[in-house]
Amino acid sequence: MGLAFGRGLAAACCSFVIATAAWTQEAHPSSVHVTPEMEETAAALIEAALTDDTGYQTVRSLTTEVGPRLAGSEAETRARAWAVKRLNAMGFENVRVEPFSVNYWERGEETAEILAPYPQKLLITALGGSAATPAKGVTGEVATFPSLAALARADGADLKGKIVFIDERMTRTQDGSGYRAAVRKRYDTPFDVAPSGALAVLIRSVGTSSQRFPHTGSMLSGREGDGVPAAALSGPDADQLARVLEDGSVKVKVTITPKRQGEAQSGNVIAELPGREAPGEIILIGAHLDSWDLGTGAIDDGAGVGIVIGAAHTIKETLQKPPRRTIRIVLFGSEEVGLVGARAYRDAHKDELAQHVLAAESDFGAAQVWRFDSRVAEAALPAIDQIGAALTPLKIFRGHNQATHGPDIKPLREAGVPMVSLVQNGTDYFDLHHTPNDTFDKIDPAQLAQTAAAYAAVAYLAAETQATFRADRE
Amino acid sequence: MGLAFGRGLAAACCSFVIATAAWTQEAHPSSVHVTPEMEETAAALIEAALTDDTGYQTVRSLTTEVGPRLAGSEAETRARAWAVKRLNAMGFENVRVEPFSVNYWERGEETAEILAPYPQKLLITALGGSAATPAKGVTGEVATFPSLAALARADGADLKGKIVFIDERMTRTQDGSGYRAAVRKRYDTPFDVAPSGALAVLIRSVGTSSQRFPHTGSMLSGREGDGVPAAALSGPDADQLARVLEDGSVKVKVTITPKRQGEAQSGNVIAELPGREAPGEIILIGAHLDSWDLGTGAIDDGAGVGIVIGAAHTIKETLQKPPRRTIRIVLFGSEEVGLVGARAYRDAHKDELAQHVLAAESDFGAAQVWRFDSRVAEAALPAIDQIGAALTPLKIFRGHNQATHGPDIKPLREAGVPMVSLVQNGTDYFDLHHTPNDTFDKIDPAQLAQTAAAYAAVAYLAAETQATFRADRE
Repeated sequence: MGLAFGRGLAAACCSFVIATAAWTQEAHPSSVHVTPEMEETAAALIEAALTDDTGYQTVRSLTTEVGPRLAGSEAETRARAWAVKRLNAMGFENVRVEPFSVNYWERGEETAEILAPYPQKLLITALGGSAATPAKGVTGEVATFPSLAALARADGADLKGKIVFIDERMTRTQDGSGYRAAVRKRYDTPFDVAPSGALAVLIRSVGTSSQRFPHTGSMLSGREGDGVPAAALSGPDADQLARVLEDGSVKVKVTITPKRQGEAQSGNVIAELPGREAPGEIILIGAHLDSWDLGTGAIDDGAGVGIVIGAAHTIKETLQKPPRRTIRIVLFGSEEVGLVGARAYRDAHKDELAQHVLAAESDFGAAQVWRFDSRVAEAALPAIDQIGAALTPLKIFRGHNQATHGPDIKPLREAGVPMVSLVQNGTDYFDLHHTPNDTFDKIDPAQLAQTAAAYAAVAYLAAETQATFRADRE
Repeated sequence: MGLAFGRGLAAACCSFVIATAAWTQEAHPSSVHVTPEMEETAAALIEAALTDDTGYQTVRSLTTEVGPRLAGSEAETRARAWAVKRLNAMGFENVRVEPFSVNYWERGEETAEILAPYPQKLLITALGGSAATPAKGVTGEVATFPSLAALARADGADLKGKIVFIDERMTRTQDGSGYRAAVRKRYDTPFDVAPSGALAVLIRSVGTSSQRFPHTGSMLSGREGDGVPAAALSGPDADQLARVLEDGSVKVKVTITPKRQGEAQSGNVIAELPGREAPGEIILIGAHLDSWDLGTGAIDDGAGVGIVIGAAHTIKETLQKPPRRTIRIVLFGSEEVGLVGARAYRDAHKDELAQHVLAAESDFGAAQVWRFDSRVAEAALPAIDQIGAALTPLKIFRGHNQATHGPDIKPLREAGVPMVSLVQNGTDYFDLHHTPNDTFDKIDPAQLAQTAAAYAAVAYLAAETQATFRADRE
């Protein structure tokens, strides 16, 4: 399809061209990196993306036809086949899988119960990567701590034969900062208590929901050893255990039987819109293909998969000729178990990293973008500001230059690749994330389309501009 | 504690005495059944109940110290012991258990999965009373129907060897009418399809939530035979199965292994505030003590237990002398499995039913009362209207005279006992009801206190007035 600008659109474009110029000249006197023609095209892409349901249909297809797709599982293999088929059918080029291996961990039985004083079941789920208890479970008195910090002050000798409970709550925030604080208890408790002879660890779910879903997530962050078998209680179950503990000593039985299955196949799926003038220069837009096993991985990260494929689809179908640089979609494998696909990508593309002009990943749900952050060279701020200004019709504000969103592009960032974050509203994200409740019905197609529109505009502008964003190129 | 009316309270009383008189005289010219002194006392009870957290603490205690309490289980026995202890400690009189036996059905394993075309797990829960599949499950093609009515039009021969899926949605309503329509598929499908040779039944959960909780509930409503093994899919799982079915034939495996354990002990718990002048005349306020096993039975019906105990506690602690008639608390056992306790109560008290002046049951969650319905003799409407007028400060409207709320008082109603319904707002009730998510944290103490206040006022006025409410007594 070609471009067909109406009078209203042209008028709208002009008005924000003026606003942009005023803004960027004030902050960073500089040349024009985004031309009026590019701005008109970006506006047309936004308009097209807002009515293109490709992203939504892509999440629907992935979560229905594959469902849960745990890193290293047969289902993740099916997800790669699904992606290759879909990306080829949509007409992308250089569609391929880049394989790598991952340690495959598989969930088993997971039950818990209060034996005394008030017998009843508790709902738990094993933390990803956790060791198993014996098949018949472990039974012990609960040692409760209000926080990881309180645990650090405890005498390890008191924990021998105990089941350690960390009852620390997570704070709900729009930008996910509550998660970064709360997740420490998941990474550290199983290893911190290991020397003490504690039998198992229970944590209050890292999450913000009062629905009765326990929240999984990897406990592996590079610590030595196996750690103590560890599981999360749902919020209401943590509340319940805390109430029972008010009445004195509590005896609990915990049984989790996950298996560490050794090396298994995983992989990243790649597809491209090759650049018309500088095909070796890459604008990377990514998401991750794997998910936790409890839900169908709709918001984490089926949504991201839908957003980046939807954005690239809109660019491909709306423009008469491809952008100057290559737009590369990367669907990372095995993100959830420690950015394994992200590191495999960095290593496989190490000779090409200098040609990665800009990278962005959508891995924060299906809600709309509200802020545009960057992490580029100081000298590149005028160009990035001009790209950000194109997002004004989507009610997206320009943020700071310390962008961090996008776990799979962290290894690229560390290797010097400039990046941007299209920060989605994450207020409700941790209600669903890593729980059985992460299902397709939770996605609002209008918000997903807004996010895809933002990705389409940014990917196009970054691919079309002559500007570069890294210090060593300026 | 005695009465201590402030100037503000007295003034408020006067203003609604006038309003009441105007209203009732217009509709039913009649004498004064509720005196100004009684109205003042009712207003004082309301004020006291709104700051009495006995109801809330009672639900907290029951759901924490007993937790789930399935009809006929050891946990239900513990719930009766909990109730007797608590009611005695609060100083009620004639605290006792009236035992009866019930058929005890116990949940087993419950799993389901799509085998083809898109292998993945589905979350289900067995319907209460369901037969079991073989331990290794049953596998068959899905035969899907949009409604029970559509199933009725199907050719039974087509269902042989199939797994029947009824994908009928429930309508969200304030008064629970959506449930009464939707629940038919739970009662009828397992029996309707039995002659056809269908292997199992899956229904879309009877409930309004899009959270991923399957909804249990009894499938036994008096039909002959065992029925086909039957389970409910959570809303999101029913959505998923429906999406997969759009792509053609679907093969599913269902395993449920509940056990019918035969006769077990259950019982009703009774406590009284004996009347000061007419102790043989009974105002019954009830709730049910048993719950489904998936959650802790907080809104169904821990809330009702808290509300009626809280209301009676406020009456007992606020008044200097007990009301004229006896206020009887009845905590019914085994409600969820077919009103077994309700019928046992009716039978055990058959010689006393004529002395049951009025009955009410709270079994519709923890939210506030918005309407006051009755089912009394026409001649008693002026008296009931005057009682209803006392609820105006709680923003409760007078409803109709065809009250039906309160399952456990249905057998009493059928035996001619007059009744009232303090209709609670049930808009969200079926989001939680009969699911693992029915837990204490979902209760708003302010709304629970409003409901307890309404029960306190109504129970007191019905116990204090000289009016009677049944046709044969007028």
